[in-house]
Amino acid sequence: MIAEIISIGDELLKGGKVNTNAAFIASALGGIGVPVARIVTCADEEGAIAGVFSESLSRADIVLATGGLGPTRDDRTKKAAAELFGKLLVESDEAYRLLVAWFSGRGRPLPETLREQAMIIEGSVLVPNTIGTASGMIVPCGERSQQRYLVLMPGVPAEMEMMMLKTVIPFFSARSSAVLLHTPVKTVGIGETMLAGLIVEVEDALPGGTKLAYLPHTAGVDLVVTTTGCESEAVRHENRAVVDAILLKAGHFVYATGDATLEETVGRMLAGSSMRIAVAESCTGGLIASRLTDVPGSSAYFLQGVVTYSNESKMRLLGVSPAMIEQYGAVSEPVAEEMARGCLLASGADIAVSTTGIAGPSGGSEKKPVGTVCIGIARKVTDGERAKAGTYRMYGTRLQNKLRFAEAALREVWKSLQEDGSGRPA
Amino acid sequence: MIAEIISIGDELLKGGKVNTNAAFIASALGGIGVPVARIVTCADEEGAIAGVFSESLSRADIVLATGGLGPTRDDRTKKAAAELFGKLLVESDEAYRLLVAWFSGRGRPLPETLREQAMIIEGSVLVPNTIGTASGMIVPCGERSQQRYLVLMPGVPAEMEMMMLKTVIPFFSARSSAVLLHTPVKTVGIGETMLAGLIVEVEDALPGGTKLAYLPHTAGVDLVVTTTGCESEAVRHENRAVVDAILLKAGHFVYATGDATLEETVGRMLAGSSMRIAVAESCTGGLIASRLTDVPGSSAYFLQGVVTYSNESKMRLLGVSPAMIEQYGAVSEPVAEEMARGCLLASGADIAVSTTGIAGPSGGSEKKPVGTVCIGIARKVTDGERAKAGTYRMYGTRLQNKLRFAEAALREVWKSLQEDGSGRPA
Repeated sequence: MIAEIISIGDELLKGGKVNTNAAFIASALGGIGVPVARIVTCADEEGAIAGVFSESLSRADIVLATGGLGPTRDDRTKKAAAELFGKLLVESDEAYRLLVAWFSGRGRPLPETLREQAMIIEGSVLVPNTIGTASGMIVPCGERSQQRYLVLMPGVPAEMEMMMLKTVIPFFSARSSAVLLHTPVKTVGIGETMLAGLIVEVEDALPGGTKLAYLPHTAGVDLVVTTTGCESEAVRHENRAVVDAILLKAGHFVYATGDATLEETVGRMLAGSSMRIAVAESCTGGLIASRLTDVPGSSAYFLQGVVTYSNESKMRLLGVSPAMIEQYGAVSEPVAEEMARGCLLASGADIAVSTTGIAGPSGGSEKKPVGTVCIGIARKVTDGERAKAGTYRMYGTRLQNKLRFAEAALREVWKSLQEDGSGRPA
Repeated sequence: MIAEIISIGDELLKGGKVNTNAAFIASALGGIGVPVARIVTCADEEGAIAGVFSESLSRADIVLATGGLGPTRDDRTKKAAAELFGKLLVESDEAYRLLVAWFSGRGRPLPETLREQAMIIEGSVLVPNTIGTASGMIVPCGERSQQRYLVLMPGVPAEMEMMMLKTVIPFFSARSSAVLLHTPVKTVGIGETMLAGLIVEVEDALPGGTKLAYLPHTAGVDLVVTTTGCESEAVRHENRAVVDAILLKAGHFVYATGDATLEETVGRMLAGSSMRIAVAESCTGGLIASRLTDVPGSSAYFLQGVVTYSNESKMRLLGVSPAMIEQYGAVSEPVAEEMARGCLLASGADIAVSTTGIAGPSGGSEKKPVGTVCIGIARKVTDGERAKAGTYRMYGTRLQNKLRFAEAALREVWKSLQEDGSGRPA
């Protein structure tokens, strides 16, 4: 079975909005061995929608579409599909019941204008929506000898995600036989070209069923090892052998094999060694704390953070001396080290990380250009504490630099925790 | 002129990566009146690439493709296009010069293996890359009577963005005659259905050249008013009239007309009234501080932030009394109010905002379920300070709740500043 994804919405074509839904759907389909051959975005317009539906249904077994199921006038997907198949829209009893329940959960009656949200194409399978109002549906189409399916889901990410996980994936999982395995290999602190150089021999010797892809992102590059086959054990084995070969060559830069983020990896290491972390941020402005606390359960190890943007607050909250700022400048290794040390002492944490730098676009100088960041790490040790700092240089816009500074700071925490031996990637 | 966008890359089809490039390109083309009819994502595979190129070139005047120009083996775009057109790849002198300069700027000689990055399709216009190694190109194709263009750019966002702004947009801007105007109308604190209800009369009376789209996102909904026409002044006038009509009905919820984010709007108000802000975050974990400091120049008004995840840190850094936490619980309006007040006093800021809540997935109770947040605002006034707090309820995952909590907190800051009369949307 091959799938195509169709994202419907003028907002995606005019660039107001990034298409995160397609990535989610593709990833979920990959999990049940259904590869995605194409993703198409088209306008909120009945002719365009019907045209793209026919084209995709002529190539793929499963076509999954999101968007255009809402209650407003620019929502035209259901009508376009019904007309394409020459079918009627009928009210689903279950969808109506869910709709009434959704409103009563918010203490309101169902507005008559929204009752239309419970209508689905006749002959289709309802994909229930328990967290929103638009009904999803799986529409069987094509000849009986070559059954095809059109899946319609709302464009609101949380609603689509719930529908995929609860209904759509189980529905197609029962109908798929291929095995497809993706293993992300996540690196930090190395660029695409250097990484490719390290693993050239692995690429030269890739087994037939396995592909290797590079995913550069703002703060680094990840690899994905994809293996396809018919037999689950053989696929797992071949995939694992390639991942192991990569770890042998570039393991020093790999913080996770699998879906873990850098903050999850760091969090797992902190939790595993019962350590608590505190953060002192200048140029990253709270981003490191925010990433660390994105992880469920982070309250077990995240103690506190301070965002000391002004020199004044660096002195007040972290005890950095005015003389030190005067002598070395706010963006300097001594200040980063002192920030980390002050943060450690003020919070009582076991490890503290600090950033001070110039995200830009202005504020740079010849000696300290935009993109410069000093990162400090302080650790509690038996006889007190020890702190160190390093300077790094990034080449991006303000937001890219912030992301890269935060990534580098989390990497320094990861490296420091690794020295304790608390965990290589599993 | 109509455009289509092609995103090349297996990583986009397997869901490892969200397609942000297409959104950027669409938005930039909109700025010069070139609408995008379709966005297609296809695999890193020569047959698929050539097929999608032909299809798109049969429909659109300009086809812009990203990805597959890097130095690794999964980069096959240039070869696919050259074969499709039956053309050779030739080295561009300028691209070679830039490539050498890029490496020497990093203190390294050009590796011979990367020299291939300076090759472009014969007869095409080089799109120079000053921040990376892959050369972009504009390939003229089609008959002379109906000139079409294929634009190839790398998939690394910063490189593609630089190419679009410096070379591609100026190239096509000189060749476009249509006028297309998008005006975002950005709201906060209102859902799609309620907003649609408020502006139903505006939608009923939309002039012929104007469309209205709803862009729901994690923390709210934006509108986009799009007007097309041939004459710039008439388009601007019609578009402005619709925006004004929306403001008349729903202006209370509109924080910006245009591209400003909520943090930029708040930042402009703070800067305009020479006020300084401080932030005390529990459940938002640094996200509010990070958003405020995403804005260039925010050091002028952002004083400091604290992330007080533990009760201990709420007491130590913000002076919240243990008795108050004991009596009301950490997630309560009195504690939120005290956090904001403590943050104001400790920092010397003019306004402080605080959050304490339960992002989930665990930690909720019947009285205070996951998704509950208390937001405090404290303001310096002539005879001391005044503080207040409110409780809000969201219905999402941990990350969605964090985003919505932060949005609500920034909204409360915006509302508080508005009471001073420091600015409705322009």
